[in-house]
Amino acid sequence: MGKFDLIENEKLRKQIEFIIECDKAKQVLRRTALTDCSRRENDAEHSWHLAVCAMVLFEYAPDGADLGKTVQMVTVHDLVEIYAGDTFAYDEQGNSTKQKRENEAANRLFGMLAEQGVFFRSLWNEFEQCSTPTALYARALDCLQPLLHNFVTEGYTWKGNHITAEMVLKRNEPCRRAMPEVWKIVEKIVDDSRQKGLLE
Amino acid sequence: MGKFDLIENEKLRKQIEFIIECDKAKQVLRRTALTDCSRRENDAEHSWHLAVCAMVLFEYAPDGADLGKTVQMVTVHDLVEIYAGDTFAYDEQGNSTKQKRENEAANRLFGMLAEQGVFFRSLWNEFEQCSTPTALYARALDCLQPLLHNFVTEGYTWKGNHITAEMVLKRNEPCRRAMPEVWKIVEKIVDDSRQKGLLE
Repeated sequence: MGKFDLIENEKLRKQIEFIIECDKAKQVLRRTALTDCSRRENDAEHSWHLAVCAMVLFEYAPDGADLGKTVQMVTVHDLVEIYAGDTFAYDEQGNSTKQKRENEAANRLFGMLAEQGVFFRSLWNEFEQCSTPTALYARALDCLQPLLHNFVTEGYTWKGNHITAEMVLKRNEPCRRAMPEVWKIVEKIVDDSRQKGLLE
Repeated sequence: MGKFDLIENEKLRKQIEFIIECDKAKQVLRRTALTDCSRRENDAEHSWHLAVCAMVLFEYAPDGADLGKTVQMVTVHDLVEIYAGDTFAYDEQGNSTKQKRENEAANRLFGMLAEQGVFFRSLWNEFEQCSTPTALYARALDCLQPLLHNFVTEGYTWKGNHITAEMVLKRNEPCRRAMPEVWKIVEKIVDDSRQKGLLE
């Protein structure tokens, strides 16, 4: 970096350098488009939108989920993609190497932060393992938001990729477990999309 | 909208419509550029970056600040700009009408959510009034992040706008009050930027 060598406090300098490194998430493009189809959205925008979703839909979250922690979790859940890139949800080959690529990325990125990196890493691990109510809620939102975008954009990501209704329902399985009330609308949206020919 | 009329639960339908409306924040451009100067950043990206900053710098936050609430506050702090637009921090004329424009925008946007809108509105009010440790911390980050971007981008927003070191220091006043340890680096960055001619 070098730019922040004027910060004598080494810990604070590393923290500022980490913050600047995170700026790169604004350039990691996802497969999902903005709702007006003007362009694809990036990881920073997606993560922010999940935080909004977490706040709006919290009344449907599973017992034991913590809102403040969910918002932090979704904020950092895709940071590893700065180095590992975005892996399309329905790309089998990409997903077979995803874990290894993302683990190496996590080592590199969170390693910038010394002991504080352990906190970020454990929050990301919790999301990946989906083993707590908070992580299950975050994961459900991570599937729901692109579903809503695809519904609004007439299947922007689905069309041309041979995506079936069954694949989308399977992908949204965390929503069924986390938020039964919201799952009802997932089923309706998928059913409606199949009827419209947006899904195979 | 109409698109989500298939959701029979009216409350949930309004919540989903609100979530989709928030997508527009990804199109509200700020004056600040990404760190590689490739383009200007938008409100969604900026808000997400503040959430990252809140998590990384929390050890320097004022006593009584709540991290989970700060992350929620920065997530929604610029939502009113969907209708009110971004007002450049150093635009005196724009800032004279900002409050009125943003209040009207808040009525319209948060009004989409019935009683839940009151929660979002009060969180935004708390940020605007800067009357609690959490709001002061959020405000300090809201000034610090563009300062860091401007430092990295050699004064992208400053140059050509006749921005002086005094203006930037005054703008970052919440940082001095909220985070004395971080304020030291604000002073260093401003001093260095003046020496380099990035600030008048």
